[in-house]
Amino acid sequence: MRIMGIDPGYGIVGYGVVEYSHGHFTPIKAGTIKTPSDLEFLKRLRVIYLDMQGLIEHYRPDEIAVEKLFFNTNITTGIDVAQARGVTLLPAVMQNLPVYEYTPLQVKSSIVGYGYAEKKQVQEMVRSMLHLAQIIKPDDAADAMAIAITHGLSLNTRRVMEKFDKAAK
Amino acid sequence: MRIMGIDPGYGIVGYGVVEYSHGHFTPIKAGTIKTPSDLEFLKRLRVIYLDMQGLIEHYRPDEIAVEKLFFNTNITTGIDVAQARGVTLLPAVMQNLPVYEYTPLQVKSSIVGYGYAEKKQVQEMVRSMLHLAQIIKPDDAADAMAIAITHGLSLNTRRVMEKFDKAAK
Repeated sequence: MRIMGIDPGYGIVGYGVVEYSHGHFTPIKAGTIKTPSDLEFLKRLRVIYLDMQGLIEHYRPDEIAVEKLFFNTNITTGIDVAQARGVTLLPAVMQNLPVYEYTPLQVKSSIVGYGYAEKKQVQEMVRSMLHLAQIIKPDDAADAMAIAITHGLSLNTRRVMEKFDKAAK
Repeated sequence: MRIMGIDPGYGIVGYGVVEYSHGHFTPIKAGTIKTPSDLEFLKRLRVIYLDMQGLIEHYRPDEIAVEKLFFNTNITTGIDVAQARGVTLLPAVMQNLPVYEYTPLQVKSSIVGYGYAEKKQVQEMVRSMLHLAQIIKPDDAADAMAIAITHGLSLNTRRVMEKFDKAAK
């Protein structure tokens, strides 16, 4: 199964595409969509929509995993991140791809095994799980890849739980 | 000039299309896009996107006016309204239509002449300016029409100010 993880934003959208099979992850592509800060906000949304549409057509993920939004710091930035997030997910929804949400806590727990792990620890685990020589850069692409891996691991957990369930019957 | 006003939301999106010429408004259409509450959130966004795309193709507005978002009450609802707002404006942006934002205060001031006017007063003024027998229903459609009229009035003000400016030179 091919999973695309997305780290939403309006200045930078991180994405990470990974192939997940028999408990193993193979990295396909990690990158970012960047929108110029001097571009009108709504035109930045158009860039995101078109680029995301292109990425989905090119990499053909089966499922999408995205970071759940919380507003804890700047509320005005939060409104704009949320507007961008809706637009970012739209191409996936237009293609009928299932979209799953994970909190940063879930990502850290599932990858490092500890919900309050440092960003560096998550990045190092992602590097190791994907057998990469270097950690993924920039952070937004690494975060997106971590979300994609979290989704893969959660599928795994679900499958194991289903087996337990069957065994118990 | 044809103006489409939009009152964003994810359950109901209000819209109002008005023709504005020589200081007079002619109503073209006021209505709502409704999304079923039992539909998955992202699928509701798809309904909004497709319906809004259809409305813009059908009514061919020259400019868009939309309510500026504030988060004052429920923050979770706010995130979802913002995600829907990005998606709602996307078809307009894809068509290169200019989009203008107005706060509820600006709408009330420009229509009733008083920023803390009651909703009923705004609706009655909208009815009167459009020479309608009844106020527009539901509220979301009436609000959208009020935003469209606000944009028309602001164009008028701008034009008058440009004239003053020229006269002064």
